[in-house]
Amino acid sequence: MAEFTIADALKLRAGKNFHISDVDPTSTPGFDGDKDELKKEFSKFDDELYDLQERLFANGRAHGDSAPSVLLILQGMDTSGKGGAIRHVFSTFDPQGTYTTGFGKPTEEELEHDFLWRIRKHDPQPGQIVAFDRSHYEDVLIQRVHEWVDEDEIDRRIEAIREYEAELAAKGVRIIKVMLHISQDFQKENLIERTEREDKFWKYDPSDVEERQYWDDYMRAYEDAIRRTDAFHAPWYVIPSDNKRYARTALKALMVDLLRHLDLAWPPADFDPETERERIKNS
Amino acid sequence: MAEFTIADALKLRAGKNFHISDVDPTSTPGFDGDKDELKKEFSKFDDELYDLQERLFANGRAHGDSAPSVLLILQGMDTSGKGGAIRHVFSTFDPQGTYTTGFGKPTEEELEHDFLWRIRKHDPQPGQIVAFDRSHYEDVLIQRVHEWVDEDEIDRRIEAIREYEAELAAKGVRIIKVMLHISQDFQKENLIERTEREDKFWKYDPSDVEERQYWDDYMRAYEDAIRRTDAFHAPWYVIPSDNKRYARTALKALMVDLLRHLDLAWPPADFDPETERERIKNS
Repeated sequence: MAEFTIADALKLRAGKNFHISDVDPTSTPGFDGDKDELKKEFSKFDDELYDLQERLFANGRAHGDSAPSVLLILQGMDTSGKGGAIRHVFSTFDPQGTYTTGFGKPTEEELEHDFLWRIRKHDPQPGQIVAFDRSHYEDVLIQRVHEWVDEDEIDRRIEAIREYEAELAAKGVRIIKVMLHISQDFQKENLIERTEREDKFWKYDPSDVEERQYWDDYMRAYEDAIRRTDAFHAPWYVIPSDNKRYARTALKALMVDLLRHLDLAWPPADFDPETERERIKNS
Repeated sequence: MAEFTIADALKLRAGKNFHISDVDPTSTPGFDGDKDELKKEFSKFDDELYDLQERLFANGRAHGDSAPSVLLILQGMDTSGKGGAIRHVFSTFDPQGTYTTGFGKPTEEELEHDFLWRIRKHDPQPGQIVAFDRSHYEDVLIQRVHEWVDEDEIDRRIEAIREYEAELAAKGVRIIKVMLHISQDFQKENLIERTEREDKFWKYDPSDVEERQYWDDYMRAYEDAIRRTDAFHAPWYVIPSDNKRYARTALKALMVDLLRHLDLAWPPADFDPETERERIKNS
């Protein structure tokens, strides 16, 4: 168990009968080694991730619209480490084939449109790996917790999300949805750090403290959204994330698994290698 | 000289009197150490690049439109290593604050618009670092070499580029333009490799061989475009790039220099740290 495997990561799947109280944010399921051992596990997928992403990118270039793409949707409470997780996983990729975007408070223009309007602008292109730092799920989380919309509207949105994700999947987008699950105590530590370090001030917002009062409501909203939107083509994983390195390792393992399943060969030569070699030599 | 400094990188500046024949693509100006020493130099800026980029991103978040941004324009002949250079420099950054895009053969829709139309869509946002793999310069390089447009049109485009870049600079975009300069022999080796390795086939295009016939014309077009568009706010650097690791190290050094000159402090707290700490503790 000082080895963390892809099979361990896959056990973090949260399906239709998911209970968020079953997940201990301080735990590290599948791994009970020490810090140094975790550091090793954290890097072991890097070369394969790089290779798999390049194959995907190459297929996008060679096969255009028929090539698949990947969408990683990351959710989690404030300070759960979404940005850092994306950074660590995506630093193994070629930035030319990836795209990362965040969804904060909607702008006035965005509020005039359906909640999926601003999301659809960022649909992955063939061969691309896209990460969403927060997403359309905010529209059934923060908005539900604060009762900014009624439950009928939540039902409508959940249905719209299911349709949207099914539509993406039908177009060849492989979706993976991940909640980085931290404890309320860990968030407290992280928020305090943001008031102590000059290089963290910019991340702190006094309203984060008010949001903490709604913790249990958020957990209920997450649980319900996860149960109702988990699907074979858009699975949810809930990663215990008080241990950041564990969370990032698990995310890498899930990405490797997803990319392996694309089963991508290198695009074949559409030229005769020998003839071309001669032409180049004579040029 | 086993140490490569920022001052060495800055000497690669190509200004109004630039002669491309003065640059030996096989050379490594400012560095004459061995492979292991170069490997060390290659990594030495990484931590600082990470820190500087995070400051820039934080300023974008905190100050919105008044925050600067960065645009790296990379040009070079086929196989000059533009993609790899971007990958290695940008892997030190947080992908959330960066954006990379390439400009290939224009689509039919793009051809119906002015040549800058497709470029302007990718203007950097405040706090962002953007890389262009090829750019609007293709419109005064490949198009000039093949005489697809006449010289009057080239003059018009050069002027349009100068205006466009000045306009970006006035909006707070810090521009850096880099040509990765390889030799014709090195390109030959690289092209042959693409016909020999299954994982490289997708990068090979038989028309690359035809383009090689126009090498001297390309060099003339590069020289002229560089001379006429170099500016204090949009400087050109020409990096000898037969040695890939040298080229990437030089590019990192230039990026460090640019980011340092932004002289970015962490955004100050817009809250009272002590009060907030108490609120968090009691929450």
